[in-house]
Amino acid sequence: MIYQTEITLSPFPRGCHLITRLIEKQLPTLPPCGLLHLFLKHSSAGLTLNENADPTVRYDFENMMNRIAPQSHLYEHDLEGADDMPAHFKSSLTGVSLMIPISGGRLNLGTWQGIYLCEFRNQGGSRQLVATVWS
Amino acid sequence: MIYQTEITLSPFPRGCHLITRLIEKQLPTLPPCGLLHLFLKHSSAGLTLNENADPTVRYDFENMMNRIAPQSHLYEHDLEGADDMPAHFKSSLTGVSLMIPISGGRLNLGTWQGIYLCEFRNQGGSRQLVATVWS
Amino acid sequence: MIYQTEITLSPFPRGCHLITRLIEKQLPTLPPCGLLHLFLKHSSAGLTLNENADPTVRYDFENMMNRIAPQSHLYEHDLEGADDMPAHFKSSLTGVSLMIPISGGRLNLGTWQGIYLCEFRNQGGSRQLVATVWS
Repeated sequence: MIYQTEITLSPFPRGCHLITRLIEKQLPTLPPCGLLHLFLKHSSAGLTLNENADPTVRYDFENMMNRIAPQSHLYEHDLEGADDMPAHFKSSLTGVSLMIPISGGRLNLGTWQGIYLCEFRNQGGSRQLVATVWS
Repeated sequence: MIYQTEITLSPFPRGCHLITRLIEKQLPTLPPCGLLHLFLKHSSAGLTLNENADPTVRYDFENMMNRIAPQSHLYEHDLEGADDMPAHFKSSLTGVSLMIPISGGRLNLGTWQGIYLCEFRNQGGSRQLVATVWS
Repeated sequence: MIYQTEITLSPFPRGCHLITRLIEKQLPTLPPCGLLHLFLKHSSAGLTLNENADPTVRYDFENMMNRIAPQSHLYEHDLEGADDMPAHFKSSLTGVSLMIPISGGRLNLGTWQGIYLCEFRNQGGSRQLVATVWS
C-alpha cells in the first residue's frame, strides 16, 4: 500500500531547523511496518538527519557548510546573489530526500536523530515537500 | 507492483550532466502514484538532483567538487591517476542513488530540479544504472 | 511484501569499514526483484557505497573527511570532545541510509561497490541498523 501527500513548509530563516514533529503532525496513522520517503522539491535547500538535542549542532552545521562553500568564492552562477550558488552546491551535499523506516507504527529513528530542514538561501521562502508512506 | 530495468549510459566527459530526459525516455509508462529509484553501479561517479536551467551551475558544481577534493592532494590510492581517488571521494559526497516520487504518472520533481550524472573520472567510460519503479 | 529486521554492529574503530558480507549474512533469502534499505540509527557515523577492493581507498576517505571537518576547528558543540561535532557533520555528508536494488535474489551492486560503515567517533561503540527488504 502506498500513501502520498504534499506538505508546504512556511518560510524558515537561513540555517538548520529541526522539523521532525512538524512532519509527523502532517502524516496519517503510520503502518506497523514500512518506510517513509520525504522529498524536497528544491535545489537550494536540503534534508538531512542529525543530532536532535543541542541547538549548537545546528549552528556549527551551518558554519561548516559555509566553510566548504563560501560566499566569497568566485562563482559563474551569481545573478541571484552571493548565497545562490553555494546553496545549490550544499543542497547536493546533504541531498533533498530521506528514507526512514517505520516500525510499530512510528518513525524508527535513533534516540538522537532528528529531521533537519537546511535552508541554504537568505530568503528561501516557503518550501514544498512530498511525503510517501509505503507498507 | 515493482518494475526494474538496467540502463546503459554512453560515456560522458568529466563534469556534471543533466540526464532527466534521457532517463525518462528509458522508463515505461509511470503509475499514478509511486517512487522511482535510480542506482548507479559505480564508485567514481555520482547521481544528484540540482538546478536544471543554467549550465553555469553544472560548471560551478564541478569546480567546487575539485576544490573539496583536489587532485594535487597526496593520496595513497593513486595507481590509476590523479583523478582516481578524488572521484571515489566525490562519489560518496553526492551519493550514487536517488529516490524520486511519482505522482499523476510523472516524476514529481520541483520546477528547477533535474537529474545530474556527475562524471568524476577523466575517462569514466559508459556507466550502468538500475531503475526500479514501485507502485 | 516487506521484511524488516534490526542489526547490531559490534564496535568498529574510527575509520571506514567494508561491511557488505556482514550485512548480507544477516539478511533472509532475498526476493527475485526488490530493494534493500539500510538505515543507521545514529548521527555520528555514516553509511556509504564505495570501492570494495583496495584498503587505501578507505584510508584516503577517512583522511579527506578529516580535511573537510578538522578537529582543530573551533566548534560550539564540543562537550564530548574534539571528534564529536566533526562526526555529526560528516554523518550528513555521507548520509546514514542506503537503498540498493535486489535483482535475481542478490544485491545488484557494481563490481567495485561495497557497503562502508564510516565510524566518525573515536569510541563510537556498537551501532544499530534497520534493514528493510521490499519486493
